[in-house]
Amino acid sequence: MLNPFDDAHWMRQAFQQALAARDAGEVPVGAVVVVGQRLLGKGHNLTERLHDVTAHAEMQAITAAAHDLGGKYLTEATLYVTLEPCVMCAGALYWTQIGRVVWGAHDPKRGFSRVGPLLHPKTRFEGGLMAQESADLLQAFFRSKRGR
Amino acid sequence: MLNPFDDAHWMRQAFQQALAARDAGEVPVGAVVVVGQRLLGKGHNLTERLHDVTAHAEMQAITAAAHDLGGKYLTEATLYVTLEPCVMCAGALYWTQIGRVVWGAHDPKRGFSRVGPLLHPKTRFEGGLMAQESADLLQAFFRSKRGR
Repeated sequence: MLNPFDDAHWMRQAFQQALAARDAGEVPVGAVVVVGQRLLGKGHNLTERLHDVTAHAEMQAITAAAHDLGGKYLTEATLYVTLEPCVMCAGALYWTQIGRVVWGAHDPKRGFSRVGPLLHPKTRFEGGLMAQESADLLQAFFRSKRGR
Repeated sequence: MLNPFDDAHWMRQAFQQALAARDAGEVPVGAVVVVGQRLLGKGHNLTERLHDVTAHAEMQAITAAAHDLGGKYLTEATLYVTLEPCVMCAGALYWTQIGRVVWGAHDPKRGFSRVGPLLHPKTRFEGGLMAQESADLLQAFFRSKRGR
């Protein structure tokens, strides 16, 4: 039987968040946090609107998810995010003890994996799902910014 | 001439925030962000009240400071925090490009410096100011928690 709530489904939801970020003039990165078939939290970059460098998509999504659960830990949850998390977000994910992280585009310059194993030892992770679409969206955004 | 707004003065302000955290049942870590003689932001750990692992003292203080400034970057500012920042907070401080970070107690287990140079290359940093008082406050807090 087909699973309508597979990784591709949830990454598309994260990508929708990235599109919403772009439309708001924010760096187009989006994220969702899921347990089983339930969406616990979603978010996109809000660093411009909030004047807050900590307002990354992942931070919004995990804060929303923890609020929904009424607890700090996300051990049963999966985060889907369109770009490899940065060091700050990986550090935050460490504290949540999240079960799994799936990202889209790799970020060789700012991604956490260049630094080392920053996630919790129990967190499974993989990258590359919808990587091209996510990378293209970012590139188009920064190209349009430079063109101004 | 004596400078009444020296490092010791501001670290005492951060320590006051740590005491407020303890009195609220939160892990006693406090922080302030300062430019020149002006306090831009302050905060203490709120992870319990907010059910949010990202609600560290530093995150509260830099978010408040950026809000006060109306801008994302804290290149002229100094953060005083009673405990060495974790990986998440160091990653956040990187994004702020903060001018200087001064911490109290070292954190060999969760502090960022065990991982590597996570702060911005332009950020100066040092630890050990009011280290004993800050460490004692944390130890007393965790001892009282275990004693319940």
